[in-house]
Amino acid sequence: MRLILVAGTTATAGIDGISAAGADADLLQHTPGADAELLAYGDVVRAPEVPMSPTGCPTPALVTRAAREVVGFDVVTVDGGLRVPTGAPTVTVGARPGDDIREQDPVPSAPGSFVAARQYGRKLPNEEFVVGETVPGGTTTALGVLRALGEDWAVSSSLPENPQKLKEEVVAEGLDASGLSPGDAAGDPKMAVRRMGDPVLAVVAGLTVGALESGTRVVLGGGTQMLAAAALVRHAGIEAPLSLATTSYVVDSVPDFREAAATFDLGLTVTDPGFDAVDHAGLASYADGVAKEGAGMGGALALAAREGLVDEVTGATLDLLDRLGTGNGP
Amino acid sequence: MRLILVAGTTATAGIDGISAAGADADLLQHTPGADAELLAYGDVVRAPEVPMSPTGCPTPALVTRAAREVVGFDVVTVDGGLRVPTGAPTVTVGARPGDDIREQDPVPSAPGSFVAARQYGRKLPNEEFVVGETVPGGTTTALGVLRALGEDWAVSSSLPENPQKLKEEVVAEGLDASGLSPGDAAGDPKMAVRRMGDPVLAVVAGLTVGALESGTRVVLGGGTQMLAAAALVRHAGIEAPLSLATTSYVVDSVPDFREAAATFDLGLTVTDPGFDAVDHAGLASYADGVAKEGAGMGGALALAAREGLVDEVTGATLDLLDRLGTGNGP
Repeated sequence: MRLILVAGTTATAGIDGISAAGADADLLQHTPGADAELLAYGDVVRAPEVPMSPTGCPTPALVTRAAREVVGFDVVTVDGGLRVPTGAPTVTVGARPGDDIREQDPVPSAPGSFVAARQYGRKLPNEEFVVGETVPGGTTTALGVLRALGEDWAVSSSLPENPQKLKEEVVAEGLDASGLSPGDAAGDPKMAVRRMGDPVLAVVAGLTVGALESGTRVVLGGGTQMLAAAALVRHAGIEAPLSLATTSYVVDSVPDFREAAATFDLGLTVTDPGFDAVDHAGLASYADGVAKEGAGMGGALALAAREGLVDEVTGATLDLLDRLGTGNGP
Repeated sequence: MRLILVAGTTATAGIDGISAAGADADLLQHTPGADAELLAYGDVVRAPEVPMSPTGCPTPALVTRAAREVVGFDVVTVDGGLRVPTGAPTVTVGARPGDDIREQDPVPSAPGSFVAARQYGRKLPNEEFVVGETVPGGTTTALGVLRALGEDWAVSSSLPENPQKLKEEVVAEGLDASGLSPGDAAGDPKMAVRRMGDPVLAVVAGLTVGALESGTRVVLGGGTQMLAAAALVRHAGIEAPLSLATTSYVVDSVPDFREAAATFDLGLTVTDPGFDAVDHAGLASYADGVAKEGAGMGGALALAAREGLVDEVTGATLDLLDRLGTGNGP
């Protein structure tokens, strides 16, 4: 079994109040590479620190890493537009850092990297894999993609109070800048992600399309960003079975998440790692709606759940936090 | 446990009669990336085919992959100057493809990538790792480095008849072009590898120096190229314990290999995977001195030997050859 993490950036994350995927704006740039390093090595190697939200909630990559240690799956990171070099090994598909979606053409690398990722997805010899993402600001670009495709579903947030209104404003500005009305990119996923998305979504969608075309099963491991990826896949005309695995924290907080998954014909797996009961303030804040999901966490938990090992993953996450000296949170 | 494969190129491999690490000169360019893909996925993904010598001997990367499947260690590939993009995930340390050592300055990226690899080696959280290499033409550049450092040891070959005289001529020309006499780079490993080596050796040496400095144990997994890497480490003034793990095919064919290893104060592990007795002509040709070693094979076998699993690796190698449709050789 393999988990593929697509790691990248969008300048959309720099908009004040959009993302909690890092303690401050500077550290936010390092979050995707740090997440990839955690999955590869169990610690950061080049990144300055283990990503934490401003309130001390540790990155979901720790949960994915803990699941890897418990379940034993392989991890590959694909560069989905990293801005700073990472010490994690990465596969290159030509993705470049994404610009703010309020620009006219924020992701010019999207069509090329979609094609390269599709090619790569076709050739992967696994029978099944999980895809995850790490891209601060990614729920806003997911919203942009959904609207460009004419899909009305809501998106999640790494913040406990989802800045939904701010996101809708950013997306409206982005559509304006791109000369698009909602739905104008229906059936044209490459345009949707190029004009209103981020480089990670382009790669996730391409990878998934390629894999499904070659008969490989794909589990989208994540929340509403993976819903947007699924929308891109369906708008590419791919009708093959596809599933999505996420956390209870996403499903409990995003209105109509189950209905949205059903609309895109996704088999849905929801896992609750029980962080509300742990003796670690940072990790427990997942249950209060901080972070919720990311870096393949929901997918990794689903792999653990298949083998009845979810509690072991929660234990291993606490051990990993201890090992990394991120103690008991703030 | 982790095995780090450093994969790169030197134009030295293009000299007629130097290397058997590919069926022809064009395919030779793809060999390091193909080896990395085999280790990561068990099959090629972007590379055109599984590397074979002109006589149909399969790449040692298959043995390393088989050992990975049996023993279960992690693999990371570091880009040591690849010329064509690989589908394997790679860590970047700034290495660029090496030029022919008969040029004046064939590896200008060597000092920078040595430093970046050292930094990376220092930060790796493993207590121990194995380093392997894949660089066609690499025994000739290893000879160049040994001579530049003033070391008189012989090098191996992927060909059954080692073109030792040709290699010595190439190295003599290279020293001339660089304005060096044998031994002029003693104590200056960065100069030795920049003027007479290849980008892979620079990265292997940097990685090893960094790891040893931070108390991580390192096993150099390979033949005479790893002897050259050890020479670079010792000429960098590093006296920490260091070991080398190779195959019986190297030790049986390279004069004074054990003495050379002792000179550099290397703990030596030699493993015989028993390919002379297998029912696969290509694999059996290892025992006739084809390929002999590479892509971390000796190091991977040593990890298997620690757990008494060498026969299982040989069996898994045959299974892998079957799975890849490379049947019973030519």
